[in-house]
Amino acid sequence: MSHINDTITALATPPGQGALGIIRVSGSQTIPIVNDLFKGKDLTKVVTHTIHLGTIRNDENEIIDEVLVSIFKGPNSYTKEDVIEISSHGSQYILQKILSLLVSKGARLAKPGEFTQKAFLNGRFDLAQAEAVADLIASENASMQQTAMKQMRGGFSDEIKNLREQLVHFASMIELELDFAEEDVEFADRQGLIDLVNKIQTLIQSLISSFEYGNAIKNGIPTVIAGKPNAGKSTLLNALLNEEKAIVSDVAGTTRDFIEDSIYLDGIAFRFIDTAGIRETEDKVESIGVQRTLAKMKEASLVIYMIDLANDTTDNIREQIEGLKKSSVPSLIVGNKVDEAKPELKALLEDENAVFISAKGKDHLDDLKAQLQTFVTDTKSSSDVIVTNARHLQSLQQTDDALNRVIEGINMEMSNDLVAQDIRSALFHLGEITGEVTTDDLLENIFSKFCIGK
Amino acid sequence: MSHINDTITALATPPGQGALGIIRVSGSQTIPIVNDLFKGKDLTKVVTHTIHLGTIRNDENEIIDEVLVSIFKGPNSYTKEDVIEISSHGSQYILQKILSLLVSKGARLAKPGEFTQKAFLNGRFDLAQAEAVADLIASENASMQQTAMKQMRGGFSDEIKNLREQLVHFASMIELELDFAEEDVEFADRQGLIDLVNKIQTLIQSLISSFEYGNAIKNGIPTVIAGKPNAGKSTLLNALLNEEKAIVSDVAGTTRDFIEDSIYLDGIAFRFIDTAGIRETEDKVESIGVQRTLAKMKEASLVIYMIDLANDTTDNIREQIEGLKKSSVPSLIVGNKVDEAKPELKALLEDENAVFISAKGKDHLDDLKAQLQTFVTDTKSSSDVIVTNARHLQSLQQTDDALNRVIEGINMEMSNDLVAQDIRSALFHLGEITGEVTTDDLLENIFSKFCIGK
Repeated sequence: MSHINDTITALATPPGQGALGIIRVSGSQTIPIVNDLFKGKDLTKVVTHTIHLGTIRNDENEIIDEVLVSIFKGPNSYTKEDVIEISSHGSQYILQKILSLLVSKGARLAKPGEFTQKAFLNGRFDLAQAEAVADLIASENASMQQTAMKQMRGGFSDEIKNLREQLVHFASMIELELDFAEEDVEFADRQGLIDLVNKIQTLIQSLISSFEYGNAIKNGIPTVIAGKPNAGKSTLLNALLNEEKAIVSDVAGTTRDFIEDSIYLDGIAFRFIDTAGIRETEDKVESIGVQRTLAKMKEASLVIYMIDLANDTTDNIREQIEGLKKSSVPSLIVGNKVDEAKPELKALLEDENAVFISAKGKDHLDDLKAQLQTFVTDTKSSSDVIVTNARHLQSLQQTDDALNRVIEGINMEMSNDLVAQDIRSALFHLGEITGEVTTDDLLENIFSKFCIGK
Repeated sequence: MSHINDTITALATPPGQGALGIIRVSGSQTIPIVNDLFKGKDLTKVVTHTIHLGTIRNDENEIIDEVLVSIFKGPNSYTKEDVIEISSHGSQYILQKILSLLVSKGARLAKPGEFTQKAFLNGRFDLAQAEAVADLIASENASMQQTAMKQMRGGFSDEIKNLREQLVHFASMIELELDFAEEDVEFADRQGLIDLVNKIQTLIQSLISSFEYGNAIKNGIPTVIAGKPNAGKSTLLNALLNEEKAIVSDVAGTTRDFIEDSIYLDGIAFRFIDTAGIRETEDKVESIGVQRTLAKMKEASLVIYMIDLANDTTDNIREQIEGLKKSSVPSLIVGNKVDEAKPELKALLEDENAVFISAKGKDHLDDLKAQLQTFVTDTKSSSDVIVTNARHLQSLQQTDDALNRVIEGINMEMSNDLVAQDIRSALFHLGEITGEVTTDDLLENIFSKFCIGK
């Protein structure tokens, strides 16, 4: 674990050549260390939130770069410590040189996430908010960004704080009983206590169930396009992806590689799982057995199952639908080649709520998208606060488990101090989310996933 | 050509995920445009060189990000116009969203180098200094950085200005003669004029000859390791590169991929030209014919020619040295496997100023490096100012050509107005370097090579 009193430094902008590169320094020695290298105004005498032009020089007084230095005096900074950001020309050589000079003057190279860790340890925000910072940086679409922003600004933490207050209230009632246990006084009636726990559990359950949507926001919905050879799987994928590409590439200057195999509907990514090169196999002998496709389908949250309305047969289709219904994965049946469909095949699929399209002609793709959108809406939580973090989900589940034990204890008329122990356990797990309860390992684990310089 | 009055914007940090992403805005409408999106202090009322925390919001008042806004009021900014830098969380989605919002409020996406172009057009620095900014960003080692820094701070421009003044002085003397031509008065004696031009040409020549070193600084010295199969070429390359890697990877946090096939001596890169996978061919039948290696040698500025002292023969070696001497490329003969050398072979090479090493045992590599260093020193210009830019070289050569015509004209007693024309031509080409004379095409050509956001 790092010493909070260290003065740390790191490159805060992505590696690679750019117009600007920013180096961050934070800690009690920030101002004297940078001042030692900086020729310009005396940084010990300037006010916070001001910018100063000058040069960074090495011990031989050679100019390493002309820079702008931004000064943030603690506690009015990201870490609540003295922070300086050095804005230099984005040469990797220059940036590395400045970092070396800062280290030679007593700064230490920061570990990933260490600035945010300092911000957390110095009480700038709680752990859930700190984690939202990383989510914000990783956000790739409006839903991810909005959810992370809400969490960073404390929306989720408020919800947890609210739960915690209710639990503490409940605990105090139980403890009160405990104090008077010998006198056999029962202040809160048993059913009243159980109702209170149930109310708390309802809130926790609503948060837990929001995770499915939260996870879809963060990681997309893994989707498989399945179907017999020549059903039009790759044609559909290409049609969906190409349209998307045309839409998203309207503003230049930023890379959008990440949409390569996803389409966004309502801000949610449908991430297509490659069933062994779906795009190449179209015109070749299908080398993937049914077994293999079924395995891939199990990884998916949604299967788009394509049926060739022009060339398949009634028996075959019945068999396929049968198989699909046995699978536990939600599926959407798509009747392809609707423009040359055999009427009896189309009739067969109408009973299955299928969507009819022509992938080749790009006809009725909007109908398909509308169906996909319905899938998102069904997943959507009613709660305003959405859990996106697997760690938070786990803590919520552990809280819920502890509360189940509380109810069990009350029902079984166990001694109040045993019940109180389970309540403390519930509070502990709730506290893990916002970081009121932490261990070094937990912090290490969380912040090591951050990028350097944050 | 862009309108200088436009308000432009671009991402100024490298693409990719980082802790911070900076968006730059410059132009007369910078402050109102950003103020329209920013919730925090009223940016029209803040003083220059201050930083303000707030949020960027879209038209639906949704928070896109919490940002820091740095304000630079013209002319105290990089472009001499009002400039704002928005420091946001480095998500590509967020950065793209903010850029879109800026565009929707009236900013235009900047072309590569357009900020620096504005700085040039607004008189912040001359063209040679502007070009040095790009060199500084691309600098990969101390020599590149120091040379670019000197040029950016006006060292090279001062030299050109000095030359220009001398030429103007000379021109005025010629023009004075011209005015009194009818009276047949010769104010400056012919030899005096020639001496003055010679003096100017000496300075120009020294700058021209510095280009070889400048080019070595900027692009490295293309080097080929040649020799017969099993002479130890790949062993030497690996030995040199591995040692280098250990030295340069002492500060983490920045990528150093660019040293992959170069070693640095005295700040100059020896860039090894791959003669068809030099590292793989060692233990295989040498498939590259002598012809092929010779072709590669012609691309090089230096050939390190390796001879196997343990297994070669006197006749063979004589033949190899013979061939090497016919080549126009400077070469350094290296006797390898010195620990198992046949004495007569070693004696043969001693006459050729060879370096004796054992690539496998990594023995005497320092002797080899010392020899390589000598090669750099020999190239090094005596001048303090170094030409690194091929465009500048061309302009200097054209200036020199014009001055040759001036001397020719004087010697041939041509009319002074013809001589004056050549002087004007010399001044024109000199002016191209610092941008006193420019065309839209020239500027377009220079700035399009910059990165976006600079």
